[in-house]
Amino acid sequence: MQRHDVEVLLLGNELLRGERRDAHLAFVAQVAQRAGARVDECHAVGDDVAAIASKVRERLPRTRVLVVTGGLGPTDDDVTREGVAEAIGAPLEFREDAWREIEAFMSARGRTATEANRRQAHFPRGADILVNSLGTAPGFALAADGAHVFVLPGPPRELQPMMESLVLPKLLQVFGREPLRVETLRTVGIAESQLFEMLEPTTFALTAYSVSWVPSIAGVDVVLTEKRDAPRDRLDAEAQRVHERMTEVLGSKYYERGARPLALVVGETLRARRETLAVAESLTGGTIARLVTEHAGSSDYFLASAVAYANESKTAFLGVRAETIEQFGAVSEETCTEMAHGARRRANATYGVATTGIAGPGGGTPHKPVGLVFIGVAWDGGSQIKRVIYPGDRAAIRDRAAHGAMWLVHDRLVRTPEK
Amino acid sequence: MQRHDVEVLLLGNELLRGERRDAHLAFVAQVAQRAGARVDECHAVGDDVAAIASKVRERLPRTRVLVVTGGLGPTDDDVTREGVAEAIGAPLEFREDAWREIEAFMSARGRTATEANRRQAHFPRGADILVNSLGTAPGFALAADGAHVFVLPGPPRELQPMMESLVLPKLLQVFGREPLRVETLRTVGIAESQLFEMLEPTTFALTAYSVSWVPSIAGVDVVLTEKRDAPRDRLDAEAQRVHERMTEVLGSKYYERGARPLALVVGETLRARRETLAVAESLTGGTIARLVTEHAGSSDYFLASAVAYANESKTAFLGVRAETIEQFGAVSEETCTEMAHGARRRANATYGVATTGIAGPGGGTPHKPVGLVFIGVAWDGGSQIKRVIYPGDRAAIRDRAAHGAMWLVHDRLVRTPEK
Repeated sequence: MQRHDVEVLLLGNELLRGERRDAHLAFVAQVAQRAGARVDECHAVGDDVAAIASKVRERLPRTRVLVVTGGLGPTDDDVTREGVAEAIGAPLEFREDAWREIEAFMSARGRTATEANRRQAHFPRGADILVNSLGTAPGFALAADGAHVFVLPGPPRELQPMMESLVLPKLLQVFGREPLRVETLRTVGIAESQLFEMLEPTTFALTAYSVSWVPSIAGVDVVLTEKRDAPRDRLDAEAQRVHERMTEVLGSKYYERGARPLALVVGETLRARRETLAVAESLTGGTIARLVTEHAGSSDYFLASAVAYANESKTAFLGVRAETIEQFGAVSEETCTEMAHGARRRANATYGVATTGIAGPGGGTPHKPVGLVFIGVAWDGGSQIKRVIYPGDRAAIRDRAAHGAMWLVHDRLVRTPEK
Repeated sequence: MQRHDVEVLLLGNELLRGERRDAHLAFVAQVAQRAGARVDECHAVGDDVAAIASKVRERLPRTRVLVVTGGLGPTDDDVTREGVAEAIGAPLEFREDAWREIEAFMSARGRTATEANRRQAHFPRGADILVNSLGTAPGFALAADGAHVFVLPGPPRELQPMMESLVLPKLLQVFGREPLRVETLRTVGIAESQLFEMLEPTTFALTAYSVSWVPSIAGVDVVLTEKRDAPRDRLDAEAQRVHERMTEVLGSKYYERGARPLALVVGETLRARRETLAVAESLTGGTIARLVTEHAGSSDYFLASAVAYANESKTAFLGVRAETIEQFGAVSEETCTEMAHGARRRANATYGVATTGIAGPGGGTPHKPVGLVFIGVAWDGGSQIKRVIYPGDRAAIRDRAAHGAMWLVHDRLVRTPEK
């Protein structure tokens, strides 16, 4: 049987008890892809020496690369070192050089390395140490049973740079392949089955790519992945054909050919046009501001957001008239319009975007049910407000409303010629 | 060999290509725990009929329950139905009753069920249909090779209610056990190895629980999990001993015995005291507002947040004096103080909490490096401001600053007797 390219083994009781969501598989997969390799399987087991040893032994003969994550911490529930050592039949040895690194790391932060940290300086005999410049847990690499094994610490901010700087170069050596071409085409505001039907004849006819449909709270991505033995001369033309079809059929709801999220697409358009954005949020409670400011450099186009939950705050922070709220309610087209204009004026921005609605679970009425949201964009001289009913729970309604509002801004930018 | 309690099989190319993070393992694990069962292993494979069939066949004899997620969508990259059918050697059959449900679901939303949706009405012969009231993909259940198999759709908002209402009752029957007792004790602002040393003699001496240390961006949780054959009469006393030790050693940095996040602990304290909060955010960009408003009922105590990125917006939305920014800079104790007071006064809140700092990656200087943050809380008559340097990347700095600021509010509440 042919070995897999890459397998991932996630360790940690907290994963299997549901106390934490895994963040590593996605990252390892992205890095593997840059080496033209594919993650074929992933496994998760608990912090138990026997369970780890048995799973590592089981996987070694089936894969070329095994990436093991987590369980390298200082506390005695972290037993990955022991499990891997047992799997390959090598004893754990104290490594002076690693210990000095740990001591230096702690003292640079005004702390002293503890006895607990000493466990982190133990490695299976023969392993190469992988230096961790952002934490106390070094990783290690070894070869066993025909597989390359990389063992990395659990905190994502430590694992990620180690994966990029230490593991990726090795993967490039091992696989020596061209990365597969992947094209992501992103849409917002269209259901998966509808999108599939709308694009059907074009996407069915592809010979160089396999197509997947990846729905998330932000929208549905159409992902074209090069087939391993694809006719390479068709790659450009087929991707272009899908792109053109999506542009024609979907308009501004097809917002990105690439990996940028909607908030970044909007942001970069604003930057290029030297225009700015201010936000007025009610039910989305800071979600829009957070999506926009996730990106470095967002201060070029993002000026401010007022998260005005209380009615009085809508007046104090955004200048919404108390009479408007009294007459039409906080969840109304009229209030949404004044919020969008208020944010725009007070921040002196080109556009104001606003949300007001009922995120639930309480607070709904027959006329204004949970999920009812007004989203709007305002500019000097006009505004566009939409009434939407979003399905789902509180978190889903908030996130959908935030993406819906950002799409309104995008749509406005697409329709309005640059000045 | 003894069978595992529960295993989870995650399906989806998007997981193995890193386009999406899994959300199911954690949720399934939490539900299993409520039935006194443990998830012992988790696996992920791609959307490939042969890979799915082979993994399902491999796991069936090793576990009592297998939960399979994803790949039930309408598009032709969704092949979970085919894979499971092949694994158990049963043909797929069209089910009229499921098809009518799908048609009704679509027409209630003003849409028409498409040919693509028809695939979703096919199930392995003999399977019980699991109704999905929030989407078009029904799940199904069957028994094979001594294991109970539950196959559920991928979108979390569909899977989660199905897991609770349809799978949990079955798990309770299968296992018929008391749930294991789990105690979570949450801390903020202390490194894992330090915390371990501080609590060491107490946590080492436990006989009824195993201890795990779960660090995340919000802080470190100490999780006590009942050992399967624990002396049950010691459970209360040992948990209490850890609780008292943590209270004594950590003070307000030990903020919760239970599952509530810091923002909810603060919120419920505010509600009980009939006090309110307003927020002024710079580098955290809406993160604090979002953390606080995630919780239903937060409008009882959360009034508003001004995310004031631009200096002019700090003045327009919060009344920060232009001279203060000019003289001390936007990232300074003085500006932070005026932001906190400005939010408090303008929203007419009991407390104002503020953040200003440099999230990076650009914008740092030798005097004001990336990671430098001022966090502060203000009340009528006073304020407390802290200067902190947070490690990590932009996302980590933003999240840590948000949690640091919320801890300041918590600390203030703990120190101030209720009026």
